[in-house]
Amino acid sequence: MLGFGVVDGVGPDGSPTDETTFTPIAGHPYGGIEVAGPPVPLSGLRLLAPTLPSKVIALGRNYLAHAQELGNDVPSEPMIFLKPSTSVVGPGDRIVLPEQSERVEHEAELAVVIGRLCKEVPLARVPEVVLGYTCANDVTARDLQRSDGQWGRAKGFDTFCPLGPWIQTEADPDDLDIVCTVDGEVRQSSSTSLLIRKAHELVAWVSNVMTLLPGDVILTGTPEGVGPIPDGSTVSVSISTIGTLTNKAVSA
Amino acid sequence: MLGFGVVDGVGPDGSPTDETTFTPIAGHPYGGIEVAGPPVPLSGLRLLAPTLPSKVIALGRNYLAHAQELGNDVPSEPMIFLKPSTSVVGPGDRIVLPEQSERVEHEAELAVVIGRLCKEVPLARVPEVVLGYTCANDVTARDLQRSDGQWGRAKGFDTFCPLGPWIQTEADPDDLDIVCTVDGEVRQSSSTSLLIRKAHELVAWVSNVMTLLPGDVILTGTPEGVGPIPDGSTVSVSISTIGTLTNKAVSA
Repeated sequence: MLGFGVVDGVGPDGSPTDETTFTPIAGHPYGGIEVAGPPVPLSGLRLLAPTLPSKVIALGRNYLAHAQELGNDVPSEPMIFLKPSTSVVGPGDRIVLPEQSERVEHEAELAVVIGRLCKEVPLARVPEVVLGYTCANDVTARDLQRSDGQWGRAKGFDTFCPLGPWIQTEADPDDLDIVCTVDGEVRQSSSTSLLIRKAHELVAWVSNVMTLLPGDVILTGTPEGVGPIPDGSTVSVSISTIGTLTNKAVSA
Repeated sequence: MLGFGVVDGVGPDGSPTDETTFTPIAGHPYGGIEVAGPPVPLSGLRLLAPTLPSKVIALGRNYLAHAQELGNDVPSEPMIFLKPSTSVVGPGDRIVLPEQSERVEHEAELAVVIGRLCKEVPLARVPEVVLGYTCANDVTARDLQRSDGQWGRAKGFDTFCPLGPWIQTEADPDDLDIVCTVDGEVRQSSSTSLLIRKAHELVAWVSNVMTLLPGDVILTGTPEGVGPIPDGSTVSVSISTIGTLTNKAVSA
């Protein structure tokens, strides 16, 4: 059986506990939640990506220290690019390292999940169109990103957009710790308070360019500390109050 | 009523005639055509975009003379970027010029429409996954393209991907004349024989990066002659044996 549901009883940092449950809902979570069965223990379930976006809009250079580590200036306007829906995978899924690249890297990011069809959303009304927040890994073939110029290939391979483990509907997006580990070693550690353009501002800005659909995702950019995820390594993105997204990298 | 159908009886250049008919089919055209009613005159119908792509993959700098006119080198590998599905409109729809740009330009392109779920398609088997070909206008905010660096905004506005008028299933993609006019004046005139990477090669190459879904579109790049489409102007993309895609540009 496959479906959406509500996760309750996670710990304060977003980690599941023995008490964590999953309550199935009817249909999808956009436009209202209708419970469709009793809660069951989460531990017996496999989680898929919490949204199937029609598009993933991602931000370049939205943390100063990350722009600097790659030798870039901060753009005067938000710099956006798209990742294809075919790049999305869920928690526990594998990141497949393509033969075309010799250096695939992690980029831990806070992801905004859109809940309503919208366009030209004023900043004050952004909360009405946001369903919640999840963890994302904007996986990037760094060598191809440099050589190609446009990032459609380097960031567009299948499995290059892990999302999850679920959508936190109660978070304050401007004050979340974000950590990325590779095989348990901390590689990125920052806070969304350091985002140059904050999550809500980005939703408003992007919605002035393109219509957003329920389930669409905006990746808010990655902090400093990006680095390789070699074959066999395990990469985790943890965001406070949301939880942890873990994926293993394997060669194609 | 809304649905897919088969268009018959167009002229040799793809123009509709008094004899042109539309025969409705059941469901969508992927996986086989099942006629679902008698032919009706095309002239009484409004055509929508002939495909609703999950993604539009577009090529940069795939004609030498166009790369040169913008002062760019030809990339050593295909340079791809994505346009969002929300940018797609059909024949006769308006191109809305956004306030953020002072120079929106036409880019006439041959579009490949994918007919089957596929990945890592060998060149020899590309014809099995192609449903056909249509005309595209890769509308571009040239000023934002230059200032942003990544092209997600400049090429991603709503209405910036007109497609149509229909999908030609019988074309030889390597030998088609492609012409763009603005208010009847020829601005671009070239041939797909001048594509640096040919249509089938591009399908194979892109499918080595990302899974392609039925209805997905690959834009093969634009020839030289790109230029502005001011408020009130009418832009047409004509490709031999396919037909003509016409749209009017209006201010937001």
